[in-house]
Amino acid sequence: MSALTVITAVAELRRLLDERRKRGETIGLVPTMGALHEGHLSLVRAACDECACAVVSVYVNPTQFAPHEDFQRYPRNLDYDLQLLKPVGNVLVFAPTDAEMYPAGFQTTVEVTKLGLGWEGELRPMHFRGVATVVLKLFTAADADYAYFGQKDYQQLRVVEQMARDLNLRTVIRACPIARDPDGLAMSSRNRYLTSEERTRGLALSRALEIVGEMTARGETNSAELEAALRDVLASAGLKSDYAVVVDRETLQPMAQLTRPAVALVAARVGKTRLIDNMLLDAKHLVV
Amino acid sequence: MSALTVITAVAELRRLLDERRKRGETIGLVPTMGALHEGHLSLVRAACDECACAVVSVYVNPTQFAPHEDFQRYPRNLDYDLQLLKPVGNVLVFAPTDAEMYPAGFQTTVEVTKLGLGWEGELRPMHFRGVATVVLKLFTAADADYAYFGQKDYQQLRVVEQMARDLNLRTVIRACPIARDPDGLAMSSRNRYLTSEERTRGLALSRALEIVGEMTARGETNSAELEAALRDVLASAGLKSDYAVVVDRETLQPMAQLTRPAVALVAARVGKTRLIDNMLLDAKHLVV
Repeated sequence: MSALTVITAVAELRRLLDERRKRGETIGLVPTMGALHEGHLSLVRAACDECACAVVSVYVNPTQFAPHEDFQRYPRNLDYDLQLLKPVGNVLVFAPTDAEMYPAGFQTTVEVTKLGLGWEGELRPMHFRGVATVVLKLFTAADADYAYFGQKDYQQLRVVEQMARDLNLRTVIRACPIARDPDGLAMSSRNRYLTSEERTRGLALSRALEIVGEMTARGETNSAELEAALRDVLASAGLKSDYAVVVDRETLQPMAQLTRPAVALVAARVGKTRLIDNMLLDAKHLVV
Repeated sequence: MSALTVITAVAELRRLLDERRKRGETIGLVPTMGALHEGHLSLVRAACDECACAVVSVYVNPTQFAPHEDFQRYPRNLDYDLQLLKPVGNVLVFAPTDAEMYPAGFQTTVEVTKLGLGWEGELRPMHFRGVATVVLKLFTAADADYAYFGQKDYQQLRVVEQMARDLNLRTVIRACPIARDPDGLAMSSRNRYLTSEERTRGLALSRALEIVGEMTARGETNSAELEAALRDVLASAGLKSDYAVVVDRETLQPMAQLTRPAVALVAARVGKTRLIDNMLLDAKHLVV
């Protein structure tokens, strides 16, 4: 176990990575907001497996939170995050300040217009603009060969993939599977907000997805049927869903029948905490 | 005089430039919309002087034109542009198609929110969003060390400078002086739209700027006085200005007194053609 290098300035990160690049090292970036859990660590392991140099950014980005959201109480504990990272590998940690990321006069925004509109984007209107902007800044700072994102935030993943394609970014996006607790709950930094009773009710999200996954595998291709099943499971746990939909996996647009690869997206509020989860749906008979 | 290499695909440009970079060559980018004139060529010369490898992009970007503007009739003649470039140096020409720059599904936009709002931005609401987006795409495609922009489009220059700073781009922006015809008219691809009579009237823009430049050098620091002088000269040539202002050189915000470095910006319609011009103002006594 070696000590981790923590970098706080873009210029310093760039200088260090330029050296690594000159030595022929491949660079992998794992953007996080800290409050690390096993889901993040699986991304860091993927980066360490594929790249000689793994960079983990730890930055709670203010521009992706709305004024009423949990920016202030979002869990921050860099020392604890570093303890979790140490056993994983010899990573570089980039933990910039707000002044470093958004200096006085900052005014540039990046927006992925269609993919960022619905679902989370409808409930959190400025969210994906904040995400796209900060991710682009992290990409340009690290100039990474690969960047690792969890599939848990599926719409975010699609927004980032589309941005990378549209802007000719040389960074290749790696989508990594959702990490789940043994009971099925998708791991999230926000799970620590849940009381034990809320946590039990929150299991309805993954259970609902499991059920439509099985329905699809058995041959159900009607989105309305699948969406009704999602809502039934959530309702039976007393959860009101923000959305529970089956949509095109690329465009996130509704599809009446599963004639193309699909994804089921669910979001629900449990107490004061919003949970989201999703599952890729592969209709058995589907000709892709 | 050697033959110029014309590249049409981002991937091919990237491959070629990666090779040059590996050989230790510095890369300079000159973004243009073609219809080259001596102003562009001065940028290309600056790039050739500073960089081992100069890339000139020739692309009439549709997203920076409003529906009623001159996108369709904007002059396009790549062969003629190549003839002008040949004597300047052994440059790479990047001339992509619309499908290469904006493939199906393209949906990402970049916006410099404050600097892009007023002046040209007020008259051409989507203009700077289109400019910022295409310039960022050219920057990521070429990954240039330096990019050369004419000061003639002063607000565009500031938008690009701010974007580069905000997004941590490693490309350094070089601002180059306005190229003028012997009679003072700022060179522009759109000057070829002018009739001989319109061209004569259009000289009022540079004449107005010369006059406020002299007033400032003599000690005038009141913006209202300077702006009145600008409007007087334009009006006496029968031109109605879209704007004729003295503003902060960095923020482009109005300033009552020239207590900071300023720039005079003018825009006027001559017949069907819009002309813009500007001049940096340095008050003699100004403590910077």
